[in-house]
Amino acid sequence: MLTPISYRDGAVELIDQTRLPHDVVTLTIADYRELADAIRTMKIRGAPAIGIAVAYGVVLGIQEVEDEAELDGRFEEIVETLRRTRPTAVNLFWALERMTGVFYAHRKADLPILKKELLEEAKGIHDEDIEANQRIGRYGAELLPDGATVLTHCNAGALATGGYGTALGVVRAAWEAGKLAKVVVDETRPRLQGARLTAWELKQDGIPFELITDSAAGSFMAKGEVDAVTVGADRIAANGDTANKVGTYSLAVLAHHHGIPFYIAAPVSTIDGSIADGARIPIEQRDHEEVTQIQGAQIAPTGIHVRNPAFDVTPADLITAIITEKGVLRPPYIEAIHDVLHC
Amino acid sequence: MLTPISYRDGAVELIDQTRLPHDVVTLTIADYRELADAIRTMKIRGAPAIGIAVAYGVVLGIQEVEDEAELDGRFEEIVETLRRTRPTAVNLFWALERMTGVFYAHRKADLPILKKELLEEAKGIHDEDIEANQRIGRYGAELLPDGATVLTHCNAGALATGGYGTALGVVRAAWEAGKLAKVVVDETRPRLQGARLTAWELKQDGIPFELITDSAAGSFMAKGEVDAVTVGADRIAANGDTANKVGTYSLAVLAHHHGIPFYIAAPVSTIDGSIADGARIPIEQRDHEEVTQIQGAQIAPTGIHVRNPAFDVTPADLITAIITEKGVLRPPYIEAIHDVLHC
Repeated sequence: MLTPISYRDGAVELIDQTRLPHDVVTLTIADYRELADAIRTMKIRGAPAIGIAVAYGVVLGIQEVEDEAELDGRFEEIVETLRRTRPTAVNLFWALERMTGVFYAHRKADLPILKKELLEEAKGIHDEDIEANQRIGRYGAELLPDGATVLTHCNAGALATGGYGTALGVVRAAWEAGKLAKVVVDETRPRLQGARLTAWELKQDGIPFELITDSAAGSFMAKGEVDAVTVGADRIAANGDTANKVGTYSLAVLAHHHGIPFYIAAPVSTIDGSIADGARIPIEQRDHEEVTQIQGAQIAPTGIHVRNPAFDVTPADLITAIITEKGVLRPPYIEAIHDVLHC
Repeated sequence: MLTPISYRDGAVELIDQTRLPHDVVTLTIADYRELADAIRTMKIRGAPAIGIAVAYGVVLGIQEVEDEAELDGRFEEIVETLRRTRPTAVNLFWALERMTGVFYAHRKADLPILKKELLEEAKGIHDEDIEANQRIGRYGAELLPDGATVLTHCNAGALATGGYGTALGVVRAAWEAGKLAKVVVDETRPRLQGARLTAWELKQDGIPFELITDSAAGSFMAKGEVDAVTVGADRIAANGDTANKVGTYSLAVLAHHHGIPFYIAAPVSTIDGSIADGARIPIEQRDHEEVTQIQGAQIAPTGIHVRNPAFDVTPADLITAIITEKGVLRPPYIEAIHDVLHC
């Protein structure tokens, strides 16, 4: 199974997603600071994959520690460095919390044992994510009609997760079940994760798809060419409001206008029960050059004003269902989310 | 005044819009076939500018004719070559009809007189368009609130017209009247006319603007940062349905969802009274490489399926008003359009 990240012999191996689809380059990273930089620069991206990456990042960081007297200080420094990489995807903070729990549970044990426990936890987070995606896929595929054309945005595939994918997990499961006609792939400006990553994954798997520009999605919906929209999530608030790649909100409004079901596919680790609604989700503002340059080539005049929010928030009332590994959540989400988090 | 095209000494001069914003290159074209090619490859684009270009194209074509016996055959060949360049913008067919009318009215005159009449007509089409834009600008500016932020898509500016612009004519007039806070400019994939052309025009004029990706527009509307959407048109059907650059329809749905006025700014020459509704407007499908390559660099896997409609159709019921040089048309458009065409 394609996974964007794995751990071997004291180092993390990850596919450099900024080089796809042209070059499949595996980076070997043994320094957690370098891993933090890889997250910041989106060599690895996607909310679940970021969670897995920071878990392995803690492992790499603690590996360096030889002196138990330094342990607490170094741990805090490692966690802080990883925490500051990206602000929106909550899986990052969730994974750091899990690693922090294990750290303090085994804080008094011998260093080799602590290191082993942290590695076990990180691998557990990774394995659980893959299993969660396969469940999400099965639940999601059941929601689709036979011969479905599914529109997706950004990349919520194997590359964005531990493997298999969330939104693309649904696509893969539907394809395996013989229910999928094709996928319509938004290119997803500015970073082109649809054109570069989703198209690459689907091509590898032989799943039929059509690539379109983001702003063409509405006209395909109007022509009746889209049966469902399925996307991932970076953070889901307690009321179901969902932050995801910028452009998701527009798709949700368009799907609503056309009476097309709009699904969020995400593991429960993407739900942030501590945040009441989407207005409180921090939205990362990224570099202007992501908009004004493509592969290093300037496409706009220089010295202009640019706004580049990486995410937007889709209000719960535009979401038909949230597909998790614990089942399909339906409105009212405030109750469904409470139940899935606490029951 | 910035104009994308002009006629001098037997040749057309045009700014090569595929080279903007990096290089301002003026092409001198004396052969109508070369001009047809410049239209096809979008060296000149924008519905009104295409109309002006084909009018001058007829002038260039007839200039070559020395033998009156060849006149009818050559004229048909010229018109047919120009007609086949692009299918959606109706101004092209409208301008060819005007030139055809003049041709047959002066068909029996001496060749130099016929040539002169055709040149007069082409220049008339050009001058009328500039004047129409200035009127459109004044009418449109009156519709905007003080301190307005206007979102626009593609380029309906001086470069898309004889000069001044339609949607950007409204922006310019509002700026001159002190009513405009700023413009939000959609980059407009795949050809990036917003990032390349609208940004360049506004920068030249010192009008404040922010460049965004197309799919970010919805989130700015949701945050209350857009007071009006103003775009151009390639063809308006008799019922008000409007074909314009792909992505326009999505903006109209989003504007409707947010209660934001959505204006089409276009000269009466963009109205096609012979077409009952938008479903009958031919939509150009352009090369896949426009989506998979940017400035020659491949951004997606090779050998994949792509859909690349250049335009989409916005139904009349999503359009708040159509701003023409003969006044602001309001629903029901079928009556307003009938009146403006026939009264």
